[in-house]
Amino acid sequence: MAKILLNKKNLFHNLNLILKQTKSKEKVAIVLKDNAYGHGLLEIAKLAKEFGIKKAVVRTCEEARKINNYFDYILILADTNLSTYSHTFHIAVNSLEQIKQLPKNTQVHLKVDSGMHRNGINKDKLKEAIHGLYKQNLKFTGLFTHYRCADELATDFYWQRSNFRQIKEEVKNICEQLSIPLPKFHSANSSALFRINNFDEDFARVGIASYGYLETDNIFNNPDLKPVMSLWGQKIATREIKKGQRVGYGGGYIAKKDMTISTYDVGYGDGFFRLNEKHKYITPKGYEILGRVSMDNLSVNCNDENICIFNDARQLAKIHDTITYEITTKLNPTIKKEIIQ
Amino acid sequence: MAKILLNKKNLFHNLNLILKQTKSKEKVAIVLKDNAYGHGLLEIAKLAKEFGIKKAVVRTCEEARKINNYFDYILILADTNLSTYSHTFHIAVNSLEQIKQLPKNTQVHLKVDSGMHRNGINKDKLKEAIHGLYKQNLKFTGLFTHYRCADELATDFYWQRSNFRQIKEEVKNICEQLSIPLPKFHSANSSALFRINNFDEDFARVGIASYGYLETDNIFNNPDLKPVMSLWGQKIATREIKKGQRVGYGGGYIAKKDMTISTYDVGYGDGFFRLNEKHKYITPKGYEILGRVSMDNLSVNCNDENICIFNDARQLAKIHDTITYEITTKLNPTIKKEIIQ
Repeated sequence: MAKILLNKKNLFHNLNLILKQTKSKEKVAIVLKDNAYGHGLLEIAKLAKEFGIKKAVVRTCEEARKINNYFDYILILADTNLSTYSHTFHIAVNSLEQIKQLPKNTQVHLKVDSGMHRNGINKDKLKEAIHGLYKQNLKFTGLFTHYRCADELATDFYWQRSNFRQIKEEVKNICEQLSIPLPKFHSANSSALFRINNFDEDFARVGIASYGYLETDNIFNNPDLKPVMSLWGQKIATREIKKGQRVGYGGGYIAKKDMTISTYDVGYGDGFFRLNEKHKYITPKGYEILGRVSMDNLSVNCNDENICIFNDARQLAKIHDTITYEITTKLNPTIKKEIIQ
Repeated sequence: MAKILLNKKNLFHNLNLILKQTKSKEKVAIVLKDNAYGHGLLEIAKLAKEFGIKKAVVRTCEEARKINNYFDYILILADTNLSTYSHTFHIAVNSLEQIKQLPKNTQVHLKVDSGMHRNGINKDKLKEAIHGLYKQNLKFTGLFTHYRCADELATDFYWQRSNFRQIKEEVKNICEQLSIPLPKFHSANSSALFRINNFDEDFARVGIASYGYLETDNIFNNPDLKPVMSLWGQKIATREIKKGQRVGYGGGYIAKKDMTISTYDVGYGDGFFRLNEKHKYITPKGYEILGRVSMDNLSVNCNDENICIFNDARQLAKIHDTITYEITTKLNPTIKKEIIQ
């Protein structure tokens, strides 16, 4: 059966590098949304708790409920359906309309658009939003934004940071006028955290770096992160093929010599990206994935009982013109996870 | 909340076109593996039963158990862990080793390699395999193969069919010698079924055509299949942006004029393929997905409450250099399904 191995040592190594930036475990909020970027929500929650992380970020209330026992503080990014409420939960709000729908005493993090123009409240509506929270007896517990270019060598990052700095000052003034406590301020994702020299916000939201990747330009002095996940397939069948024989859909692979090949139980139906004959992909042990990946299996020039299909998503991300996040996150949540020490 | 709408009328339309080829509902085995190619295992099982389909094909015993009440006959393609057994189940076997592991009385479909060189027993090992089934008191209920090129204009299809025809004759002889009943013979997938004029096997395994697609060369007289699935996103937030402002990661989209844009709650974390600024993708209603798709959302130049992101996977398959199967199958099983009449 296909499985995902989670390397605990590598995860802790990455979390330690993150700690060097934040200076404190209290200032790390680990991003566990989308099944912990494909790594397994509960598995990573458990390991993060063991490491001492106390804050987590998820997408939905359902995810938050599942990990409620592992953390003191959970930020829910994209769900306002608060059928079950917990004192641990903080809800991200992206619009004035959302504020009206929240039940009394809900803890709210306002998201502000500091220049990404994706989600978040416009900065000129912030006063209205904070007054709205106040009038409706909602608790204003956080103010945050997201950078569009923290991973790219561009001045955009400094421009957005400067925007957010100004926004924070305005929000402090509004809070003083209303005599309400200051919210937690946070803006840094993984790339931003490693780009900032003196991190001074209340916490950073760290996703991809925990899992061992950063998509930043190589020009930055990137930390030595180590991928946490490896994907493994189990053999279905082995056969001998002759030189010139073709393998798989469309006969996409043509044997250059007599060879032993096997199929393994990982395909694009498992969320592994479909390779075709246009791309050469070599596994960590030097085997080649032959021709087209099928929905439920793929062919490889070996006959090992189990093979590691990848232990670093970067080669695959490059082949598929995407980012490592997509390679790991798309893996089917039903694939069995095993933690290796 | 994002959702997948399943168009019952289109599904039944496709199944009727399939019936025209098989001539009988008994000869259709609907392929429901991999969450019914992303359409929802239980939803499609229920609809297929309502239509009158009695046979299904899945990948695992777990899938088979879930749909056991809907079908008389279930072929399990890639699982030999038979902890729960049912008289409905038939297990595909790809190697001589697997035969030794099966409990007495298991119903077995032998898969034979007729030229795809992916899975299946080599034809010169078939006699050994059938004798093995006989000696171990396993029931030889099926013999099948898979075509590598049924969807491409190549002579490979005729060559493989001719190979399989010869294999069937040999198997008939072996069965006569052992005085055991003949197994069901099947080889046609969707493409093969529509390429064959006088279908005469015991059943066809029909997956992608049920869902409204065929990946065959346009040179074939393709049937008028209709996509069953459409993917819908719900609005998160709306904003006005000015000409020249940039949207999303990397500021990948640059507004050509002042415009209203919104984010919707579908991203690559939901299994929707990540588009980037290199590709222009237009939704069925004529809206454009702007810049890079994020993990949990995407930006569009409209402010509708809900938008249809796709109702035909072909445009996306082309952009991502893949097949429609991968576009639908990768969608996260947790996305809510709704059947529309």
